[in-house]
Amino acid sequence: MVGAGQLARMTAAAAVGLGIDFRVLAAAADESAAQVVAGTVIGDYRSADDLLKFAAACDVVTFDHEHVPADLIGAMEQAGTAVAPSRAALRYAQDKLAMREKLTALGVPCPRFAEVSDLAQVTAFAGETGWPVVLKAISGGYDGRGVWVCHNPEEAAAVLDHGVALLAEEYVRFTRELAILVARSPSKQGAAYPVVQTVQVDGICREVLAPAPGLDAETAIDAEALGLRLAAELGVIGLLAVELFQTPRGLLVNEVAMRPHNSGHWTIEGAVTSQFEQHLRAVLNLPLGATTATAPCVVMVNILGGPDPYLRDRLTHVWAADPGVKIHLYGKQVRPGRKVGHVTALGTDLDEVAERARHAARYLALEVD
Amino acid sequence: MVGAGQLARMTAAAAVGLGIDFRVLAAAADESAAQVVAGTVIGDYRSADDLLKFAAACDVVTFDHEHVPADLIGAMEQAGTAVAPSRAALRYAQDKLAMREKLTALGVPCPRFAEVSDLAQVTAFAGETGWPVVLKAISGGYDGRGVWVCHNPEEAAAVLDHGVALLAEEYVRFTRELAILVARSPSKQGAAYPVVQTVQVDGICREVLAPAPGLDAETAIDAEALGLRLAAELGVIGLLAVELFQTPRGLLVNEVAMRPHNSGHWTIEGAVTSQFEQHLRAVLNLPLGATTATAPCVVMVNILGGPDPYLRDRLTHVWAADPGVKIHLYGKQVRPGRKVGHVTALGTDLDEVAERARHAARYLALEVD
Repeated sequence: MVGAGQLARMTAAAAVGLGIDFRVLAAAADESAAQVVAGTVIGDYRSADDLLKFAAACDVVTFDHEHVPADLIGAMEQAGTAVAPSRAALRYAQDKLAMREKLTALGVPCPRFAEVSDLAQVTAFAGETGWPVVLKAISGGYDGRGVWVCHNPEEAAAVLDHGVALLAEEYVRFTRELAILVARSPSKQGAAYPVVQTVQVDGICREVLAPAPGLDAETAIDAEALGLRLAAELGVIGLLAVELFQTPRGLLVNEVAMRPHNSGHWTIEGAVTSQFEQHLRAVLNLPLGATTATAPCVVMVNILGGPDPYLRDRLTHVWAADPGVKIHLYGKQVRPGRKVGHVTALGTDLDEVAERARHAARYLALEVD
Repeated sequence: MVGAGQLARMTAAAAVGLGIDFRVLAAAADESAAQVVAGTVIGDYRSADDLLKFAAACDVVTFDHEHVPADLIGAMEQAGTAVAPSRAALRYAQDKLAMREKLTALGVPCPRFAEVSDLAQVTAFAGETGWPVVLKAISGGYDGRGVWVCHNPEEAAAVLDHGVALLAEEYVRFTRELAILVARSPSKQGAAYPVVQTVQVDGICREVLAPAPGLDAETAIDAEALGLRLAAELGVIGLLAVELFQTPRGLLVNEVAMRPHNSGHWTIEGAVTSQFEQHLRAVLNLPLGATTATAPCVVMVNILGGPDPYLRDRLTHVWAADPGVKIHLYGKQVRPGRKVGHVTALGTDLDEVAERARHAARYLALEVD
């Protein structure tokens, strides 16, 4: 796995039971996954040398993030390494314009969009959709950010000043956000997890409710079918997470990712097969695992860094209060607002389960109490 | 954790979520846990130098097995390292005579026993209990074996010839074997898992049924109380597994172990808190986790090595047939009869769940099909 963030760290835990020789390419020995994985190789994923040397020792290469340059992914494929997902599939996770064009060609509903390179184009677009307008970096982003909600031409002009290639998107007034997570293997087997509701604050996933409360069966089936169809049409091997807006005019695709995804962390305890095991099974062309939930409702809440850097010292209170809540810490230095772990609670009553998970996450982040 | 077998390997997977710096002392880099743990130190647990150096870098030292010499455990304690369980507690897991005498002093029912050093003592003991007589190495054992069922004086004489210190025990005609697993923390918190039934063949655990089918509530409560009481009386920190004989005259204690135990592997998916996480929580003095089962019945079957060394290639059949069965491979070289992994199935119908787990384990071991 190229990259050594928390996704690689949790994948490593799933790899233990599969009896495979799991390795990560990490930038530094103190990265989240590098702290725990015996097969850690230190190197730069933007260096052809480092990447190809890492890949040469692997049967299959997969990814913890979307930042590996496409030409280097191509170089690994040319060198004969199995790469999953492939360069061709990953394009749709790396290039938002390519994704929007592909989805539109497939007839998949998306927010209205237009490639923009100057303010006149943005204001023309806003003339059709109204303000605010969402500007997105087509790939990469700027200073760690890639999405800007612009309420007027002045804000748009400031984003244009960054000089990155931009896509303008309609600001969708959604009812709520949903996500569908599917896996697909080289044998073309597909498997979909139950549709979940995600709650984002300031562009950061705060919590996930599984299954999405009160979702009608027809919409759930539509979303699952959409996920499976997209995985096949985009040629995905491994996981595909599709972020959706639920709107009065139906489901619209917001984003896609081809890796374990924050909206699937609940599956570690909440599904028969965790997304991390599923991703490994898919890229290794093993039969996919059951995606059934293990409890009537599961709630995952992210732990965002607060003012106290000693996260682990705060476990005592949380577990003394609730011996059933599951906590995952990522071994990352605590910085305000950074995802440093997550909490999962399972049960039968949604309000109670959500309150348990929220209390634990809030306390660990030192937001309250 | 001193030792790098499959217990350390599965503990490592549980350590990932706790955000702790988990290390193992391994004899070689290809040992089960050493393959996956970033914090692997190569050394000999029988060497004071290796062990004390390893311990000096740890906040707490715990064990994957019972073979660390008592004087070296004492040396770690003297050097100021927190050792859990302590030398004083581990004595009862390392010295079967000390264990029998302590349990007898506590009024805990055990098989009849006697220390024996010659054939006359064995035959005198058999005069009271009848043949066969079970001879057990008081500590360590001989050539990897520590228990011999002797049907006559000739067989007993052959065991006596090994020259190891021996205990004679009554051969118990049990109804079935049960096990109770509890945890205890330095704060004196205790937690008991549901009582399970274990099925042993030729002294090797083959399967575990959780909870023990048809066990009356009174016996279950007695067993849990016994486990918790023993953990306190023996001063255990961490897990205590008590193997029990169910007999018409009540429960008798067979063996005790102070570490994650084969009878608790079902807890990885089958309980809210796995025994591996629980052991870590206990030795780190964190509040213990909920021990509730996650399904009405859980069956764990060990995968014993068969003639095919390529265990991983056999996953495809098993998972194609049953996407819900959970498989844990230990990364150990396959040798006939060796524990190389285990399978867990969960569900509501015991016969069906047991058949799923048995089929998967048999196929992986190439015993049938």
